[in-house]
Amino acid sequence: MADNPVRRGWLGHLTRRSVLAGAVASAAFPAVAATTSAATASPRSAAVPGMRTAQATGTTRRVTIYAEALPGGLFGYGLAPGEATIPGPLLEIVEGDTLEIELVNTTNQRLSIHPHGVDYDVFSDGAPFNDSFNEPGETRTYVWRSRERSTGGGRVWLPGTAGYWHYHDHALGGDHGTQGLQKGLYGGLIVRRKGDLLPDKTFVVVFNDMTINNKMAPEAPMFDSNLGERVEWLCIGHGSMEHTFHLHAHRWADTRTGYLDGPNDLTQAVDNKDLNPGSSFGFQVIAGEGVGAGAWMYHCHVQFHSDGGMAGIFLVRNEDGSIPDHAQEAIDRYHAHHGGLGDHSGHAG
Amino acid sequence: MADNPVRRGWLGHLTRRSVLAGAVASAAFPAVAATTSAATASPRSAAVPGMRTAQATGTTRRVTIYAEALPGGLFGYGLAPGEATIPGPLLEIVEGDTLEIELVNTTNQRLSIHPHGVDYDVFSDGAPFNDSFNEPGETRTYVWRSRERSTGGGRVWLPGTAGYWHYHDHALGGDHGTQGLQKGLYGGLIVRRKGDLLPDKTFVVVFNDMTINNKMAPEAPMFDSNLGERVEWLCIGHGSMEHTFHLHAHRWADTRTGYLDGPNDLTQAVDNKDLNPGSSFGFQVIAGEGVGAGAWMYHCHVQFHSDGGMAGIFLVRNEDGSIPDHAQEAIDRYHAHHGGLGDHSGHAG
Amino acid sequence: MADNPVRRGWLGHLTRRSVLAGAVASAAFPAVAATTSAATASPRSAAVPGMRTAQATGTTRRVTIYAEALPGGLFGYGLAPGEATIPGPLLEIVEGDTLEIELVNTTNQRLSIHPHGVDYDVFSDGAPFNDSFNEPGETRTYVWRSRERSTGGGRVWLPGTAGYWHYHDHALGGDHGTQGLQKGLYGGLIVRRKGDLLPDKTFVVVFNDMTINNKMAPEAPMFDSNLGERVEWLCIGHGSMEHTFHLHAHRWADTRTGYLDGPNDLTQAVDNKDLNPGSSFGFQVIAGEGVGAGAWMYHCHVQFHSDGGMAGIFLVRNEDGSIPDHAQEAIDRYHAHHGGLGDHSGHAG
Repeated sequence: MADNPVRRGWLGHLTRRSVLAGAVASAAFPAVAATTSAATASPRSAAVPGMRTAQATGTTRRVTIYAEALPGGLFGYGLAPGEATIPGPLLEIVEGDTLEIELVNTTNQRLSIHPHGVDYDVFSDGAPFNDSFNEPGETRTYVWRSRERSTGGGRVWLPGTAGYWHYHDHALGGDHGTQGLQKGLYGGLIVRRKGDLLPDKTFVVVFNDMTINNKMAPEAPMFDSNLGERVEWLCIGHGSMEHTFHLHAHRWADTRTGYLDGPNDLTQAVDNKDLNPGSSFGFQVIAGEGVGAGAWMYHCHVQFHSDGGMAGIFLVRNEDGSIPDHAQEAIDRYHAHHGGLGDHSGHAG
Repeated sequence: MADNPVRRGWLGHLTRRSVLAGAVASAAFPAVAATTSAATASPRSAAVPGMRTAQATGTTRRVTIYAEALPGGLFGYGLAPGEATIPGPLLEIVEGDTLEIELVNTTNQRLSIHPHGVDYDVFSDGAPFNDSFNEPGETRTYVWRSRERSTGGGRVWLPGTAGYWHYHDHALGGDHGTQGLQKGLYGGLIVRRKGDLLPDKTFVVVFNDMTINNKMAPEAPMFDSNLGERVEWLCIGHGSMEHTFHLHAHRWADTRTGYLDGPNDLTQAVDNKDLNPGSSFGFQVIAGEGVGAGAWMYHCHVQFHSDGGMAGIFLVRNEDGSIPDHAQEAIDRYHAHHGGLGDHSGHAG
Repeated sequence: MADNPVRRGWLGHLTRRSVLAGAVASAAFPAVAATTSAATASPRSAAVPGMRTAQATGTTRRVTIYAEALPGGLFGYGLAPGEATIPGPLLEIVEGDTLEIELVNTTNQRLSIHPHGVDYDVFSDGAPFNDSFNEPGETRTYVWRSRERSTGGGRVWLPGTAGYWHYHDHALGGDHGTQGLQKGLYGGLIVRRKGDLLPDKTFVVVFNDMTINNKMAPEAPMFDSNLGERVEWLCIGHGSMEHTFHLHAHRWADTRTGYLDGPNDLTQAVDNKDLNPGSSFGFQVIAGEGVGAGAWMYHCHVQFHSDGGMAGIFLVRNEDGSIPDHAQEAIDRYHAHHGGLGDHSGHAG
């Protein structure tokens, strides 16, 4: 990455990734983020000159995750004691990798971790239905496996595990983790395919009932980038409400990656996409491409939801990292407006 | 099929298919299920060694369907008097086939049958709007046609009729069949393309308001398979609520079939998909592939809905048909828990 | 077009297009509709004999749009003073074109115009967040740009702007244009790709809360065609409710265009598709192909919504333009039934 999200300090989420990166550098931690190690080594693909791509390793990676109580009745997952965040740490692997997750439950509630998209046996299901959860104070290991695409015979092929997935509690307060989800026990999971382009930054956006990452405007996350950076969005839906994710001034191909696989890939472009409970998708865009630096809204396009606070900012700085005046004004307007109650007709939140 | 769903007795739906199979064998009935006749003849495709595939016949198939009142104020479609089920019988054809459906209305209500995905003229629309329905006690014939893909000129091609479709009442209690749908008048319709892989079993899952096939946990359908079987899911949405279908530990390609069409098919994989009113999709998975035998949950991922009872079991037995201990325990847990009210915090149903 | 929608008079929307066509002929207006100028010139593609296709021009087109108050507390966009409609005028360009929109706000409300799918800088965002809107009485120019697909390096390609998009107010009564949308400030935007087939007619269908184009049955729009015409549907979702669009007796490929790109395009066909707030899709079908002339329903398949009035008519006349008796009867039935309250059990509207 050209910049250091820790120093910038906008995003708790990216701060978490930097912990992973640091872990790799110090070897204090098993590496779970393929992109991070790739970034360290700066591999470059001959097929895509100048772009970093995911590399297959086929290894087993171990990580310890701490489920913790947070202020305000919330809960979070974290990579170290006292560092839980909402959403939890972004987990990244490459098809063929295995993740062994040691989940430490530091809370007084039953809870678990349940992934989407990857392989797991019944003992790693994370569902009380399969007796797979952590009692209060208990530590338990969950194993998630991934695999490449494979022939199923003749022209039939079976899809691999690559995708923009997620993980979440499936046990707190009930059989389906409804309370755990409401209170923040969720996070992003990316399984890359060998050769996938690696982004400069990844943003995790969770539409969870009437919140974005359990926040509402003007506290909704602001995602930060420089003009021309390749930024990746991982969008996840949770809760019991319907949502549509809209990003201003940017669009993406409705493919697994968000880009097209060559000139013969005719998949349509979208800039608004359903994001309903349990679903997820991801895409990469070049920040500000064709539209310039600025503060761009991302929001749920269900009008009642955006009015109610499901709207945040995608900041595209100038290439040198400075903030255009109009962008700073927009940021200030966002905070003043959403922070001030009752000062504008038609605004519910 | 390696086993006999009639003897097993889990699924009313599969029992219905066995009636079709029996009908084909005895010639007492016109065959509507291409897969069944294919299974009888055991054709094998050179392109997919060892796998059964759909064969085109281009014939007209006739079937009589009885719409009947069921206990509890429900209604159902059936292939013989007194044998109505919810969902109704699974109808299967191959592109090029025509279905002539003689609908016998044994009830005291106006009703009809309306298909998705196939061709029909206004007289077979099944909508009161087109004066197409059965008065109480009336018998009426509806004709559904299917066709292969065809060139529309140059590089433009028109899609064929192949798909995972469905049929439903469009007249009971109103112009849109809302009451008929609420009470159970719906079923699955599969139009296969020549060469499509035939499954070992097909499961029909209808998310209909807060029910699955008009049942709620612990009465929701349990779908039964042996490890390694090719099982097909036909998922249908009905009613007035939004849903997302999630299957634990299995994923599928988001294509027409659920599998990829060769190594160059880059369509993404999903394990959670919107299933809203009037929509349907289908896919095939290999039971327990990469994850093993077990009792796996399938459920609506809208949390309020899964808590409320929209959750069932996909049982993957051992290859020899025996049930692993952990799977039996999960089944028992499911029945005990969902059957016992008020015994678990956070559970609404 | 073989017929003149002005003379036919069914559709305010098509009347608007005829204004565009007239404008092109008289040169009184900048041309915004590529299809219209194409229709004038009747270009034919060698690749698709007998079919008109979109031609790239790479030009900047200017159009003035008037936002006006309408009776009943509604608002609309129009191409001339006093001619606002709901939806507003259909805007069509070809990838590479730029649209300069001079928006004249004739109302006493703050409002704007915000597009989906195209490029725009922060000053043309149409969002109060970016200080981009028209004060009452103000005229302001918004610039929308489009582009072709382009290589992003190696096998990675970036999607172009082609798509079935839309535009809407983002400022009336609040930060997200919720009131503007409720009251009718929206319209269709089509960006074609060079070589796309041009339709004989385009229908714009907006599911906006419980309305279709701010109308309910029996006032919902009736879309008119002759058997065999290539008709294009642009479907847009708005408001705060979930919808599914269903068209009787016709299906389309779930691609950008609704048709397949040759015999190797295996995209599935659909006849029911989610249409949620902020999303849009489009497709072309041949009117009555394989099913004949008739009055066909299109409706939201959420049962409560169709019962409540979200249902209209797609009229397919005979080839000579005459209306089959059964179609006229259906039209009469639709008007009598939906117009008469309380005369049918189970009907809410």
